[in-house]
Amino acid sequence: MKAEIISIGTEILFGQIVDTNSAWLAQRLPTLGIDLYYVSTVGDNQGRIVQTLRRAWERSDVIITTGGLGPTEDDLTRESIAEMLGETQRVVPELEEALRTRFARRGGPPMPERNIKQATLVPSARAIPNPRGSAPGWWTERDGHIIVSMPGVPSEMFYMWENEAAPELLSRSDGSVLLSKIIKTNGMGEALVDELLSPLLSSSNPSIGVYAKNDGIHLRLSAKAARPPEAQHMLDELEPKVNALLGDIIWGYDDETPAAAVGRLLKDRGLTLATMESCTGGLVSSLITDIAGSSTYFKGGAVTYTNAQKVAHGVHPSIIEQHGAISAECAQAMAVAIRERMSADVGISVTGVAGPDPVEGKDIGTVFIGVATADNQRVMTGGIYQRSRVDIKSRAATNSLLFLRRVLLGLE
Amino acid sequence: MKAEIISIGTEILFGQIVDTNSAWLAQRLPTLGIDLYYVSTVGDNQGRIVQTLRRAWERSDVIITTGGLGPTEDDLTRESIAEMLGETQRVVPELEEALRTRFARRGGPPMPERNIKQATLVPSARAIPNPRGSAPGWWTERDGHIIVSMPGVPSEMFYMWENEAAPELLSRSDGSVLLSKIIKTNGMGEALVDELLSPLLSSSNPSIGVYAKNDGIHLRLSAKAARPPEAQHMLDELEPKVNALLGDIIWGYDDETPAAAVGRLLKDRGLTLATMESCTGGLVSSLITDIAGSSTYFKGGAVTYTNAQKVAHGVHPSIIEQHGAISAECAQAMAVAIRERMSADVGISVTGVAGPDPVEGKDIGTVFIGVATADNQRVMTGGIYQRSRVDIKSRAATNSLLFLRRVLLGLE
Repeated sequence: MKAEIISIGTEILFGQIVDTNSAWLAQRLPTLGIDLYYVSTVGDNQGRIVQTLRRAWERSDVIITTGGLGPTEDDLTRESIAEMLGETQRVVPELEEALRTRFARRGGPPMPERNIKQATLVPSARAIPNPRGSAPGWWTERDGHIIVSMPGVPSEMFYMWENEAAPELLSRSDGSVLLSKIIKTNGMGEALVDELLSPLLSSSNPSIGVYAKNDGIHLRLSAKAARPPEAQHMLDELEPKVNALLGDIIWGYDDETPAAAVGRLLKDRGLTLATMESCTGGLVSSLITDIAGSSTYFKGGAVTYTNAQKVAHGVHPSIIEQHGAISAECAQAMAVAIRERMSADVGISVTGVAGPDPVEGKDIGTVFIGVATADNQRVMTGGIYQRSRVDIKSRAATNSLLFLRRVLLGLE
Repeated sequence: MKAEIISIGTEILFGQIVDTNSAWLAQRLPTLGIDLYYVSTVGDNQGRIVQTLRRAWERSDVIITTGGLGPTEDDLTRESIAEMLGETQRVVPELEEALRTRFARRGGPPMPERNIKQATLVPSARAIPNPRGSAPGWWTERDGHIIVSMPGVPSEMFYMWENEAAPELLSRSDGSVLLSKIIKTNGMGEALVDELLSPLLSSSNPSIGVYAKNDGIHLRLSAKAARPPEAQHMLDELEPKVNALLGDIIWGYDDETPAAAVGRLLKDRGLTLATMESCTGGLVSSLITDIAGSSTYFKGGAVTYTNAQKVAHGVHPSIIEQHGAISAECAQAMAVAIRERMSADVGISVTGVAGPDPVEGKDIGTVFIGVATADNQRVMTGGIYQRSRVDIKSRAATNSLLFLRRVLLGLE
């Protein structure tokens, strides 16, 4: 089955709302054995929505739309589908009843009459239930083509997709799928990873793609098969071969972040962590605490933006006097001090220059990362060649977490 | 002029790279008097790229493509334009020379021969210089249609757009433009903002759009005119009227963040700030330090994820014993303590439940924000109804910064 995605909404067209729905859907289609060929965005204009739908109808088996199902005059997805198919929208009593009940149950003002359009269908469409919002989706099917229309609100769309649209589409597919798994590595360049993997790279199914990312080199393992279990079996056979070739440089899988990988490692070993950050300004601790359950291993952190604060948190003034705050010595002292102050098993520190101006004669992007454990102290010195302050912070925080992982594993 | 944007790349189609280029471009087109009607994404497949270009060529005056200009076999933008126009790509000696010089200057291995395609043009195209990368863009023009092809790497694309493509497109336009300004408010609901602005909302040019966002109600002031200075004049006349009606609830403009607005206020008043965070885990201090120049007013922060750390940073144990760590009393004590500990003029604190489990019998999303100044202490109690831990952290951090602003202005 060939599919395309259409995002509908002027605010999305003009980038005032970032369209995260299309990427979310795009990643899920291959697991249903559906090939995605196009993604488009069109504003709230009926003529242009109809034109886009018509084109999609000509070239695709499945059209997935998000947005344009609200109650206002700007919400034109239903009207556009009706126009393209030459069918007439009619109010469906059961849908109207459900809509009015929803309004009544919320105890607010009665349903505005314009909302009634959310209770309509055309003859080729049936409603897709939306327990998280007022607008049902439309499943429209005619002449071998399917249009799946879902709301633009991500939480409503995710629910409708997972519970209604995806199972229905899967039941229509011939069972063949493309399954993928991402393996994330760090500490080795792309050329070296390529070389290590060379015995496996010539295979076209399953296949391995190699990509350079901000947090290291990622591998995409993909397997095509006539049935999902077969594809899964191919991935399951390939993965240990990759592991055997790459070993410890693998730090995570699929959506896993460096903070999640570090958290897993700390939890496994029963270790606690404390942070002292200068140039990252709290980003390292924020990433650590993005992970559910981090309170079991994260003791806390200090954001010591001034030298006085570094000293107040246990860095000896002589270190800063002799070496400056942007130095390997200061990074090491920060990691040691915060580990002690917060009675943690592991201390991690970041000090550097995020810009916009050099500090202590050190270039923008200079970063020192310190890690202290009971029996080990390590410092990583790095130059981060990013253009913006926010990018430098982000890269320094990612590097610090991956460095921490390597120190804990004895790889540094 | 009618325009559309085409993003080219399989990784973008499948959401493995988020397409930020399209939104960036979409926001800039109206200022050149160009109407944007469609945005599409297509993978690295020449047949489908050609089909997409052909369709765009039929319906648009200007087609902007990003991506597909690299040296590999998957980079097919040049080949697709050549095929669509029925023209032949030829190596241009000056471009080849520049490309080889670039490789030589970098001192690495000599240029791989496959890179030579980056030095080609078709008869209807001329090169757009790319000082930030190896691939020049293509400016293709025939029969009254223009294709502007730029690399997918954002920094290269931004530079090429600002310095080459935008000025050239502006010189072709009839001078009419649509200029916009965003005004951001906080502390008043959409209905009330609508009501206050009602004397201005009936105008269609300039116009005011009202949008509910995570950090408050945003207004989009837009003005269409035959010449940029006229449109600017309309905006300049409208803005003071909006200011007069809304006053202090306005906290920022255009791309400004809550952290930038708070930073401006602290700087203006010569005040310093310190943070103590529990559930936001360092996100508040990270947002504050995203702003260049924040080192002049930000003293530092503590991420006190455990009760022991809250006490170590000056919260009296009896407060936690009597009221719990998730309480207005604790938030207030945290703000007071960190202000003193870090010798800052202002202390701000956040304590709450980010999930996944309730804490101390308090629901997920319960958040208390404290602000302490020399002569004022305020606590905000909030329930944040978001689904994910990361969303709760983000909303709590935004709320804390906007609450701090309101306290400093005497609005709380």
